[in-house]
Amino acid sequence: MRSVSIVGIGQSPVGELWNRSARQIAYDAISAAMADAQIDNADALYLGNMLSGSLLDQEHLATLVADYCGLRGIEAAKVEAACASGSAALRVGMMAVASGFHDVVIVAGLEKMTDTVGKDTTAGLATAADAETEVLHGVSFVGLNALIMQRYMFEYDVPLDAFAGFSINAHRNGANNPNAMFQEAITRETYVRAPVIASPINMMDSSPVCDGSAALVLVATERARQFTRGRHVGAVRILGSASATDSIAVHDRRDPLFLQAAETSYRKAISQAGIHQNEIDFFEVHDAFTIMSALSLEACGFARRGEGWRMAQEDEIGIQGRLPLSTMGGLKSRGHPVGATGVYQVVEAVQQLRGEAGDNQVPGARLGMTQNIGGSGATILTHILGT
Amino acid sequence: MRSVSIVGIGQSPVGELWNRSARQIAYDAISAAMADAQIDNADALYLGNMLSGSLLDQEHLATLVADYCGLRGIEAAKVEAACASGSAALRVGMMAVASGFHDVVIVAGLEKMTDTVGKDTTAGLATAADAETEVLHGVSFVGLNALIMQRYMFEYDVPLDAFAGFSINAHRNGANNPNAMFQEAITRETYVRAPVIASPINMMDSSPVCDGSAALVLVATERARQFTRGRHVGAVRILGSASATDSIAVHDRRDPLFLQAAETSYRKAISQAGIHQNEIDFFEVHDAFTIMSALSLEACGFARRGEGWRMAQEDEIGIQGRLPLSTMGGLKSRGHPVGATGVYQVVEAVQQLRGEAGDNQVPGARLGMTQNIGGSGATILTHILGT
Repeated sequence: MRSVSIVGIGQSPVGELWNRSARQIAYDAISAAMADAQIDNADALYLGNMLSGSLLDQEHLATLVADYCGLRGIEAAKVEAACASGSAALRVGMMAVASGFHDVVIVAGLEKMTDTVGKDTTAGLATAADAETEVLHGVSFVGLNALIMQRYMFEYDVPLDAFAGFSINAHRNGANNPNAMFQEAITRETYVRAPVIASPINMMDSSPVCDGSAALVLVATERARQFTRGRHVGAVRILGSASATDSIAVHDRRDPLFLQAAETSYRKAISQAGIHQNEIDFFEVHDAFTIMSALSLEACGFARRGEGWRMAQEDEIGIQGRLPLSTMGGLKSRGHPVGATGVYQVVEAVQQLRGEAGDNQVPGARLGMTQNIGGSGATILTHILGT
Repeated sequence: MRSVSIVGIGQSPVGELWNRSARQIAYDAISAAMADAQIDNADALYLGNMLSGSLLDQEHLATLVADYCGLRGIEAAKVEAACASGSAALRVGMMAVASGFHDVVIVAGLEKMTDTVGKDTTAGLATAADAETEVLHGVSFVGLNALIMQRYMFEYDVPLDAFAGFSINAHRNGANNPNAMFQEAITRETYVRAPVIASPINMMDSSPVCDGSAALVLVATERARQFTRGRHVGAVRILGSASATDSIAVHDRRDPLFLQAAETSYRKAISQAGIHQNEIDFFEVHDAFTIMSALSLEACGFARRGEGWRMAQEDEIGIQGRLPLSTMGGLKSRGHPVGATGVYQVVEAVQQLRGEAGDNQVPGARLGMTQNIGGSGATILTHILGT
């Protein structure tokens, strides 16, 4: 099996991009990644996307995007795993390079969630849950997360504002990211006064509906140098990669407060990378809702059960903290264009590892971790990246 | 790179399966494939599906199916490439095994197109075309194929009933396939009298809307024997596999009557397999419409340009013919549950190569080819299988 490295990254700004159609947003990210890797063609495009069928009336999306990006002829396929689609596409791209099927592969994530005529984005997001046993009863996706958060607060006797620090941290970091949807810091008061969406989840617990695309260029590590020639930065290696699943319906889980697939994929990924937990310099966590940050930290063993929320302090998760989280704003502040998020996380991890993260640079970052969650924990992928 | 073999096959009957939900249909196929391979677990499930988002309000489908099939925990992802989704999923499964990422992989295709409440299947199928430059103008998917067929008939001065033989052959073979949707032979008169759907395409030129699922178990060839122990049949090896794309919109192609992606993927696949065209014993062609059979035969060089329709005779494409086509009924008679079709083709090719094709057995079949087309030719995958 060949080791796989990332030699190009690109991203579109995240936001309500009403003047750009889905294919144009993807072009912005893919052309930037190709320029970064100094390539003008590739062997294949694997595109993470969740909602193009339900919101855009467009399937066959990977071929369409390849065509629009001037890559007509290459292999193309869309990969879907709800909000984990982006990192699921990365897995496929890795397998394509590791196996030797292809030498130069583009992995992109794309989601267009706004400006969708006659479509209901909330209903679209609910397709991540079980249509027959969950959604049929009227629960939305934020509703499911709210039930989990409520249970967590009850079981562990946690106050409502305990989660504020995750949101404050994300916005503090997003304020320095020119591609973030919200480039504005918030205070504890902003959080406390935020309108409730689905009790106890408020606007500041929840990531936004938005558009965006991010892209990576993958090659075999042994050939990476020819793509980084003449540049001050080297390739970033994917040291660990794992995917695991759980029951799709929350009520089917043995313990709805434990992300089994996070633990499984995390343990596999660090074992592949051959590293210890305390070597991880930063963590791009899947903070779609603040409760997911707490549960992810607990499942991976960064915090004890019921105590993940205690890490939501600047000296713990800030850029200078013990384990910096959401270093470019995370899903909360950079934004969460669902099928693209997993790729944004990896693009941002590469920025950190290259020392290109600007004001948000984690000092001396050598090992980064990303975790991407589909549904309310049913599909979880963990990646470890290093220089 | 490890060579990949198929050690298990399974399929559900194809039809309007109103008493089975999507997950149940997938279970029928996957459990049969697992029993065939004598396994009770797997490392990953890659699921080809096109329409679950637009017709079933269900994404996150691969994880849902893994969960329902008792495979909770394993890696799962859905792969989409319009009507070529099934074989695109097979590519991903192959890469997973070839790279060493996984040892035992299930590849399945699944589509539920009937009994979809409040959804428009014709609109769903049109998502394979370009929503912004084709579908916006009101063309349906069958309409696009009708325009291609009309142009073909004009350019090459071909009469309307020239394509009848493809349909007659498919139904003759489907009559002996217990899983086929239509198990009834048709005559030339049935074809000539068939109602027109989109001129010149009639009911007998067109594959049906239906439900179905098919599944494969993949392992490394070097380990295949342990899965076939004690059985009279061996593993079937995937000798060639390639995917290619073209412009998504038909009007963007240099020549709308030439399937460039068919030629490209075909040439790559036979080159990998190291075989010559005349060694291929049968061909599971993508006969979604009779015109596609003609164009596919021409692009792969089995017939000259403008003469693919001349092969539509029993002594050419029948079970005893020079190049048997659609040996178990093809898309026309077995049925075309779109995201599952690519996997059905491979399952049927394995039946032939194992000598398990019953009354439709191609005598001495050693090398089989499958070709799966997404959209009106924008994504085409070719596989070569052998014993």
